[in-house]
Amino acid sequence: MTVRAGVVVTGTEVLSGRVTDRNGPWVAQQLLEMGVDVAHITVCGDRPADLTAQVQFLADQHVDLIVTTGGLGPTADDLTVATVAALYGRELHLDPELERHIDAIVERWRSRMSAAIDSGPLQAGIRKQALVPVGALSIPPTGTAPGVVVPADRAGGLPAVLILPGPPRELQAMWPAALETEPVAEVLARRTQIRQSTIRAYTLSEADLAATLRTAERRIAGFDDLEITTCLRLGELEIVTRYAESAVSSYAELVALIDEHHGARVFSDDGSTIDDIVADRLAGRRIGTAESCTGGMIAARLTDRAGSSAYVVGAVVSYANETKIGLLDVPAGMIDEHGAVSEPVAAAMAEGALRRVGVDIAVSTSGIAGPGGGTDLKPVGTVCFAIAETGRPTRTRTLRLPGDRASVRALSTTAAMHMIADALAPAR
Amino acid sequence: MTVRAGVVVTGTEVLSGRVTDRNGPWVAQQLLEMGVDVAHITVCGDRPADLTAQVQFLADQHVDLIVTTGGLGPTADDLTVATVAALYGRELHLDPELERHIDAIVERWRSRMSAAIDSGPLQAGIRKQALVPVGALSIPPTGTAPGVVVPADRAGGLPAVLILPGPPRELQAMWPAALETEPVAEVLARRTQIRQSTIRAYTLSEADLAATLRTAERRIAGFDDLEITTCLRLGELEIVTRYAESAVSSYAELVALIDEHHGARVFSDDGSTIDDIVADRLAGRRIGTAESCTGGMIAARLTDRAGSSAYVVGAVVSYANETKIGLLDVPAGMIDEHGAVSEPVAAAMAEGALRRVGVDIAVSTSGIAGPGGGTDLKPVGTVCFAIAETGRPTRTRTLRLPGDRASVRALSTTAAMHMIADALAPAR
Repeated sequence: MTVRAGVVVTGTEVLSGRVTDRNGPWVAQQLLEMGVDVAHITVCGDRPADLTAQVQFLADQHVDLIVTTGGLGPTADDLTVATVAALYGRELHLDPELERHIDAIVERWRSRMSAAIDSGPLQAGIRKQALVPVGALSIPPTGTAPGVVVPADRAGGLPAVLILPGPPRELQAMWPAALETEPVAEVLARRTQIRQSTIRAYTLSEADLAATLRTAERRIAGFDDLEITTCLRLGELEIVTRYAESAVSSYAELVALIDEHHGARVFSDDGSTIDDIVADRLAGRRIGTAESCTGGMIAARLTDRAGSSAYVVGAVVSYANETKIGLLDVPAGMIDEHGAVSEPVAAAMAEGALRRVGVDIAVSTSGIAGPGGGTDLKPVGTVCFAIAETGRPTRTRTLRLPGDRASVRALSTTAAMHMIADALAPAR
Repeated sequence: MTVRAGVVVTGTEVLSGRVTDRNGPWVAQQLLEMGVDVAHITVCGDRPADLTAQVQFLADQHVDLIVTTGGLGPTADDLTVATVAALYGRELHLDPELERHIDAIVERWRSRMSAAIDSGPLQAGIRKQALVPVGALSIPPTGTAPGVVVPADRAGGLPAVLILPGPPRELQAMWPAALETEPVAEVLARRTQIRQSTIRAYTLSEADLAATLRTAERRIAGFDDLEITTCLRLGELEIVTRYAESAVSSYAELVALIDEHHGARVFSDDGSTIDDIVADRLAGRRIGTAESCTGGMIAARLTDRAGSSAYVVGAVVSYANETKIGLLDVPAGMIDEHGAVSEPVAAAMAEGALRRVGVDIAVSTSGIAGPGGGTDLKPVGTVCFAIAETGRPTRTRTLRLPGDRASVRALSTTAAMHMIADALAPAR
């Protein structure tokens, strides 16, 4: 059977747009991967009336589980537990053992704190954080705040509520224990197993995919049992399909059809990202970058990965021409003749990085990210790329990328990742 | 009077956590800055029943304006206009002029499209996008989708709805025209002017600020008219206060009190970010970076800014020791003696960048981002920094930063920005 959940994200800093929420998406993704249908995410500030209204709304929508994030801190504006307790008609009581537990954690943290992130006196708040609604369960803190699970109130038409802390690391660390609490486990036990699979394609348009899906609808028996959503992001089209065990063969047919129509553009059908593929295909080869308009973003992305020091050697960000000349040996005359944003210069930058950084493969970017600097011949968004490899001719490419400065830089970074992956692809 | 708004973000890709929504926060921030109180943000997938439920929920909460984002595309799963029209009991009719307008845009786009982002045949969808509810207004497309404004239905208790497209660039470009439509302008005209001011501090704890706010509550007349929210992010504490014109002097007293207690940690009280301050204080001086654990993130952040080519010359990402030696002239013996993560090596890296990149000020990082590589003496999170400047002694510093790899790298980048700003600060 379908189990439905709703997520309530609390925090004025999220509601007001000052902080990008990471918890709502994370919780939704976990639930979906477990086969729980997430119907609604709501965001409210630190006002009890708004929080109450949202929880009541989700109850009215007949969700089986509500997950809240945030509002468990030691200060007066952290009100989630008290607000949910009031709605569920449960008094708060102090759990002395929990209070001692939190106290010990705070003490330990305080002694370890570095200069950059210090902790002030939290004593006053510890007592508040140890207040639990009568009949609810607490989940051991992974930061300082315990989680709370309030069981469903079937007579009142209120589902079980899982109350989690706001800091993403704390929330994620608490998740496994939260799933094992009896009220949450009871809800999860009712669900049907659902699979979720992802196909990723680069430079495939949504309209072309839509045409293929129309064909699929005609050709594939059981196509209607596949719940397909697509999303285009930085030139990558993500095709996510949710389906029950019984629709596995329909999904296999869909994969085959998409591969038949768009095989050259599909780069992943096993969930792997382009970052995974680059790391995998490097297989011991050493990589470096020479970046102008991307300003270090490709290097930052490559080194984002744990263990990347095994293959990322270094990078030169040559924002100014003199850096292209001095650190990458680009001939000054070449810049005069072709301009810094040109395929010859991109090629010389990549080859310079190959030698000077000392790697087996190097990628370079030189482009006009804007808003200024565009010309009729080379408008904003023009970006030249090169891939240099030992023992192979250097390849160059020019793209004209849409959007503002941030968009051009982000699209360039993703394009570079795909060029690296293509260069490293096994011959076929 | 207080005007309240709610925001509905649509899209299965957002609800399922695959895409981080940028529209909800952006719209909320715009509304708040105009003095509109944002009470709720809700997120739903591409299911009409869920969207209807959310719009009805916001109406039940007596908001004066609902803003929706997304679901205006040409494909069948884009349902926002039809769903809102049904709830408001308004038929859809085809606007032939709008259809021609969209057609012309699509034609123009198609001819300009680059290889990376191509557009397929959209003809079928153009007609769909030109459907407008009877009695509603359309807002000219900034991409291909027009916006729609549905007037309030006072008898039915339904507020005005502003329907905006999902791509953030299109939405933001449409915003000014949307505010001028009669139903939206009418709502905005009812609001009281509210100011919003921000104080930013670095390495100030929430608990220490809370103590100061308790003092403020006792000392400052009209303190209760200040709506203060705080948010700690990457070591920066942001203190945002909303207040009516009449509370301006209370706010001035608050600023003075925070400055009295925490002046050394406050770096901004005029809304400027540390990025603004660094760009401003550079004032013609040229900057470069030498990065190990941050892998290019500081350079990427510095070049994020339009016009940064005037002062960012370049960077060396020296992930491997051989790059530290080869491109930054760090003596090999120094690495052997002190280890790559040490203040002497960080100093040599910054000084190497000063010379080799050819700049007036250089910052360096060398640290252990994890998850591997930590030792008892230098656990994960240990990061050494240096600032080298022409004509001044090089300064070094070591921080022990908390969290996982992404956290250590992000905290290091922000710490480096603050060290640059401090180094460039006018003597006081």
